[in-house]
Amino acid sequence: MNEFDVIRRYFARPPRDPDVLIGVGDDAAVLSVDGRIAVTVDTLVEGVHFLPDAPPDSIGHRALAVSLSDLAAMGARPRWATLALTLSDADAAWLESFARGFFGLADRHGVTLVGGNLTRGPLAITVEATGDFPGGTSPLTRGGARSGDDVYVTGTLGDAAGGLERLSVRGGSSAEGRHEAGPDAALVERYLRPTPRVDAGRALAGLATAAIDLSDGLASDLAHICDASGCGAEIDVEALPLSAALVAAFGTDEGLRLALSGGDDYELCFTAPPDARARIADALAACGTPVRRIGRITDRKGIDWRRGGQSISPQAGYLHFE
Amino acid sequence: MNEFDVIRRYFARPPRDPDVLIGVGDDAAVLSVDGRIAVTVDTLVEGVHFLPDAPPDSIGHRALAVSLSDLAAMGARPRWATLALTLSDADAAWLESFARGFFGLADRHGVTLVGGNLTRGPLAITVEATGDFPGGTSPLTRGGARSGDDVYVTGTLGDAAGGLERLSVRGGSSAEGRHEAGPDAALVERYLRPTPRVDAGRALAGLATAAIDLSDGLASDLAHICDASGCGAEIDVEALPLSAALVAAFGTDEGLRLALSGGDDYELCFTAPPDARARIADALAACGTPVRRIGRITDRKGIDWRRGGQSISPQAGYLHFE
Repeated sequence: MNEFDVIRRYFARPPRDPDVLIGVGDDAAVLSVDGRIAVTVDTLVEGVHFLPDAPPDSIGHRALAVSLSDLAAMGARPRWATLALTLSDADAAWLESFARGFFGLADRHGVTLVGGNLTRGPLAITVEATGDFPGGTSPLTRGGARSGDDVYVTGTLGDAAGGLERLSVRGGSSAEGRHEAGPDAALVERYLRPTPRVDAGRALAGLATAAIDLSDGLASDLAHICDASGCGAEIDVEALPLSAALVAAFGTDEGLRLALSGGDDYELCFTAPPDARARIADALAACGTPVRRIGRITDRKGIDWRRGGQSISPQAGYLHFE
Repeated sequence: MNEFDVIRRYFARPPRDPDVLIGVGDDAAVLSVDGRIAVTVDTLVEGVHFLPDAPPDSIGHRALAVSLSDLAAMGARPRWATLALTLSDADAAWLESFARGFFGLADRHGVTLVGGNLTRGPLAITVEATGDFPGGTSPLTRGGARSGDDVYVTGTLGDAAGGLERLSVRGGSSAEGRHEAGPDAALVERYLRPTPRVDAGRALAGLATAAIDLSDGLASDLAHICDASGCGAEIDVEALPLSAALVAAFGTDEGLRLALSGGDDYELCFTAPPDARARIADALAACGTPVRRIGRITDRKGIDWRRGGQSISPQAGYLHFE
């Protein structure tokens, strides 16, 4: 198969979105837009962002999920994506599974694949996702937190890092076995197929003062909010939401360490003034997203991580160039 | 340096474009748009799309040039780009040179870098470029050619393929020597730092019936126009524009072979009805772009390559998955 056959067979689907004027197959896609758009790009590299024997559908899912998570953190509605796929060969089973994972998530969020690039080389996937702001809602940035605001996170933290740790140490029989089986399947699943908090992000636009998605770990990502907002935070480490599966597998202490320093959860961390508490609870309940208040923004620089009346020092999150 | 330092130091520049509401540094960029946009993405992989010892500034230039060339083929005005950079390490001299090449071309076309991703892995660069259509001009597609239309190309063909051939055979003393010196410097330069035909593309919107940029070679790329338009073409091979440097280095026969089958020229191939000849000549003269009429569109499928009254068969262009 040459590149055009691969694209036609696995990735070119007639767009159902009337704003996609020209989709896959010309020199560029042409989209009809009106107002503001949000644009984000992420790359997953084999051996860096996923294990070499990861199920291809999980790679397709995850490649799109990380970009949709960025749009969620801006309060944007996902619309379109492009996919730049670098493959060492064009294996039909791999491509079919990858496309199933990618389009499964895309369809759930009404995202149209409008363009792409296919080339030969070491396996890597770059997805750019574009969203808009229907109804003229304002984008959520990292820079709007103010002293006295509450700090929240959605869902539970540390599961993905726990799943990755289990995958990494588990003796590899078959790849399938390593990735799917075992008592920690729920944690592994969260690592392999994260859920971008798209509905929560849109619900928070206009309510939250700042937001970020948790890709590098709470310690590292909350610091970005503080840096961009020129403030600090005080966090009650014991308030961090841990799943029962994480505590069962790792215990509370190690679970908290994973929740603080582990990446890949793709939950949202956001801030809002105390008088918005009821509206936030209602908005997130309406879209079925669990939420936990974990601390507050302060006017002192730095983050004070408090546990049992003591300040603790979490390890830094995952920094690609450290 | 961690990834944030690299981005801050080499890639985060305050945007001067008032339509860039949020640039590099948040979860996503936010852009103000109105009307139609064109979006294209391309990946360059070391060892596939450029030689391992290529000057970093040429990689930065070329990574953006190939995407701007796609926008040119749509008749769009380039506005913004994102850059996903996968590096095996963060060498300061490499990054500085790469950024110089990238921004040199970006500044020439008023393109703002609005977002990106930096990760560790085998060297690869994915650029997505976004353009718009000021004044409501219509996008140029591959599918509008009609029987009787003329077929044109801009500039000269085969130079980049000639340059690459010289680079590949030249005994490597220093990388600098291999890439810069020698009597074929003009051909090598066209391979390393192609000029996207942005002004020509915009001038052709509303005049041309179909267009494509020549990345894989005329034989392959003109076939895309014919496929998309449901037509064929008859091309006078001896009318193909060859540079004096190409003929001097390779002779006419080999020069024509490179012009037909070599990729990487990033010239435009386009079609237009015969009654547009004067307007096309004027429009391209006004932006200083040489143009040559090389044949015509027919209603028979397939392309008839004519040389000296004979039909010849060019090799297929470069297909990544052949």
